[in-house]
Amino acid sequence: MANATSAAAANETKLGDFNFGKLIVFDDPITKDTHLLSPPVARAQGFYFYDMKSNYNAWFAYTLIFNSSDYKGTLNLMGADMMMQETRDISVVGGTGDFFMARGIATFRTDTFQGADYFRLQMDIKLYECN
Amino acid sequence: MANATSAAAANETKLGDFNFGKLIVFDDPITKDTHLLSPPVARAQGFYFYDMKSNYNAWFAYTLIFNSSDYKGTLNLMGADMMMQETRDISVVGGTGDFFMARGIATFRTDTFQGADYFRLQMDIKLYECN
Amino acid sequence: MANATSAAAANETKLGDFNFGKLIVFDDPITKDTHLLSPPVARAQGFYFYDMKSNYNAWFAYTLIFNSSDYKGTLNLMGADMMMQETRDISVVGGTGDFFMARGIATFRTDTFQGADYFRLQMDIKLYECN
Repeated sequence: MANATSAAAANETKLGDFNFGKLIVFDDPITKDTHLLSPPVARAQGFYFYDMKSNYNAWFAYTLIFNSSDYKGTLNLMGADMMMQETRDISVVGGTGDFFMARGIATFRTDTFQGADYFRLQMDIKLYECN
Repeated sequence: MANATSAAAANETKLGDFNFGKLIVFDDPITKDTHLLSPPVARAQGFYFYDMKSNYNAWFAYTLIFNSSDYKGTLNLMGADMMMQETRDISVVGGTGDFFMARGIATFRTDTFQGADYFRLQMDIKLYECN
Repeated sequence: MANATSAAAANETKLGDFNFGKLIVFDDPITKDTHLLSPPVARAQGFYFYDMKSNYNAWFAYTLIFNSSDYKGTLNLMGADMMMQETRDISVVGGTGDFFMARGIATFRTDTFQGADYFRLQMDIKLYECN
């Protein structure tokens, strides 16, 4: 299983000290817990960028890709990650496969944060189906 | 309250004269009217890029962040901004907090347009709840 | 009617051999069949980027813009394009005009693929309305 991969597709601008405008493309394993070596239950593929001049703050859009014996399918998410808040919600805007037409909320909690170079997010996802 | 902030994360390409490919990250206050000094009711954080060779035309994805005594929560939006049309609609694809699971339409109307350097949009948002 | 237009807004990084991080803005005609000269039924405006180190894999967000005697309106789509799979689904997350509040699934099938320089996608779109 591939490790986390990410790279800056566009570099930060000169605006402020919090990477304003820096855009990161990522392809990361998602695990059920915080052990780096746990087997991934999904991959997250997408991008985020920093979008505040006065603090670390980001905006995400990505897909969770499940391909296990438990679940096959994808969830598509987008929203603002107000990193200075203890928890913050983004939207699950669609799904495919086992998650056909799903919508919901993903709650982010910063698990580990080391400046702009490394952070790990905890995501709690609640799905609601549209009748 | 912070002012509008925006910066080009990727510069325009050489394709045509309308900034094709230029990508702008923004963090802007939203006011109820067009007075620059009115108190903001929300912030808009996200990005847009220009995507037409023959005219000004853009594509937006962003989050409206409400944090007032009236509303707390976010709305997530995306869609094409066909700038040469008097009005055009983009989708509200999700919401959180007071806007939990909202969907709807945001109608854009160009309020002020000064070439590629400055424009101001009027947004009328209509929300519909999914039962 | 304008031809297909696309350009790299951000270049690939040095990570792997599959354009990781390369971001493409596009404005392309959509036809009902695979003949390059067929009249377009819609335009697709948006972006994608490559997001895998070990193979061609991409992530799309775009709007289908219909402006014909049959349909007027837009559909907004996003999701992962796992290019090595024969078919893969992305989400239709919203719509406007004749597609007011639509949601659904778009199934991609690679029709023609010539390395990273040219590919053509077949999209089958199924819409479901939220009551």
